[in-house]
Amino acid sequence: MQTTDLSRFRNNDYHPGASLLKRASWHMISAAFLNSRFPGNGFKIFLLRLFGAKIGKGVIVKPSVNIKSPWLLEVGNYSWIGEHAWIDNLVRVRIGSHCCISQGALLLTGNHDYKKSSFDLITGEIILEDGVWIGAKATVCPGITCQAHSLLMVGSVATKPLEAYGIYQGNPAVKIRERVIS
Amino acid sequence: MQTTDLSRFRNNDYHPGASLLKRASWHMISAAFLNSRFPGNGFKIFLLRLFGAKIGKGVIVKPSVNIKSPWLLEVGNYSWIGEHAWIDNLVRVRIGSHCCISQGALLLTGNHDYKKSSFDLITGEIILEDGVWIGAKATVCPGITCQAHSLLMVGSVATKPLEAYGIYQGNPAVKIRERVIS
Amino acid sequence: MQTTDLSRFRNNDYHPGASLLKRASWHMISAAFLNSRFPGNGFKIFLLRLFGAKIGKGVIVKPSVNIKSPWLLEVGNYSWIGEHAWIDNLVRVRIGSHCCISQGALLLTGNHDYKKSSFDLITGEIILEDGVWIGAKATVCPGITCQAHSLLMVGSVATKPLEAYGIYQGNPAVKIRERVIS
Repeated sequence: MQTTDLSRFRNNDYHPGASLLKRASWHMISAAFLNSRFPGNGFKIFLLRLFGAKIGKGVIVKPSVNIKSPWLLEVGNYSWIGEHAWIDNLVRVRIGSHCCISQGALLLTGNHDYKKSSFDLITGEIILEDGVWIGAKATVCPGITCQAHSLLMVGSVATKPLEAYGIYQGNPAVKIRERVIS
Repeated sequence: MQTTDLSRFRNNDYHPGASLLKRASWHMISAAFLNSRFPGNGFKIFLLRLFGAKIGKGVIVKPSVNIKSPWLLEVGNYSWIGEHAWIDNLVRVRIGSHCCISQGALLLTGNHDYKKSSFDLITGEIILEDGVWIGAKATVCPGITCQAHSLLMVGSVATKPLEAYGIYQGNPAVKIRERVIS
Repeated sequence: MQTTDLSRFRNNDYHPGASLLKRASWHMISAAFLNSRFPGNGFKIFLLRLFGAKIGKGVIVKPSVNIKSPWLLEVGNYSWIGEHAWIDNLVRVRIGSHCCISQGALLLTGNHDYKKSSFDLITGEIILEDGVWIGAKATVCPGITCQAHSLLMVGSVATKPLEAYGIYQGNPAVKIRERVIS
């Protein structure tokens, strides 16, 4: 059997989308104001935009949020990013309007090709369409689109796309019923 | 199909149970001494009681614990709150005696009515009766009572009440066997 | 039925493997440089070795890593410890070469005898053989050996040993296929 050799790791010409200076600056600013107990919502939105995020109106960012790359983040109107939510965006993450990312949820954009000895990096953009709810401590895997108003329940792991108005649960998450909004 | 409109979010006359000044003070004190690497157990208990928690004797609070509302918390005697445990108590959480909330566990009291366009807040008190063990990184959902000596295994998600002396596993957690204590 | 009595808790003569002074020093140093947003990889490796960890070459330690006892940690060459990974090593944890512990993963070495009223501590060493990949937010339970090149998928919980080149998913994790590396 072949073996993994991480000394030969290749990241497939991945580029983080910002200069080292910008990334280092964001790392420090994020540690102080976003990924901390600092409460000021408006100032967080200002900082995210300053570093390139496209953010609509009425967006709420709770304390201890971990956003890797604001320059790769788009958020619509009236969406919420919950306490300890983690947007690990090596590549672009697009969040629609009226979405709720609950506390402790994780949006994961980086994977590895575990079939290759060099463990190549594989990235995949995440799209949350309007009205999506990612439950507390739930995880969305790389490359997944969650269609409009889909719902990923508490602690569940979305490894496949979520259909519009579908409610998903488990690890891996499976559709358990339809979401009917009245 | 109807859609979610978070600009019309209603929290159903929810009241956090403390003044803004008290909540802001707790947020800062918690950030410094509870939700931090600060190790002093006795001082943490003192602070929790100062902000209204009812806590018995012999209780242990580990570092990096996140307790939203001490004025809505009751803990019996000789219970343990593990490292990175998160008691997200928008409403009352009652923890009995001889309970163990292991590291990274989450007690979740807030939900949303995903069937309503206004995504109304739904809260539910959590009760852990005596001798309950919530395993590492496990989650208890809003409104759940875990009856005496029930056990929620590592990383599991309790979406329904746990019967006394039942051992539960998975997401959603199901009963896998009885707990016999000798 | 018998009940739990944590006032009679026994830790079975467990010894943390270092003096109180050493543990307190590590707690503070870890809070400042490891379990923080501090980015310097080389300095982290230096600190871990200073406190007794055996660490090979080419190892990468990301920010916000929580390592309880470096004096009980062995890591081979070219292994990665991801952001917010948590090595809760009450006892020895051995990580081979070319392993990847992804972001938010947990290696758990402490358990309790829930069948005893005194809730005795049970510890179990964890071994990750060469080429193992522990996925994001996955958990390895106490006493588990993950054989060479096994893979625990995102958010999964390993409650039993993982076979070499096996891919495991779910809670509890079950083998879903073979890992073939080319």
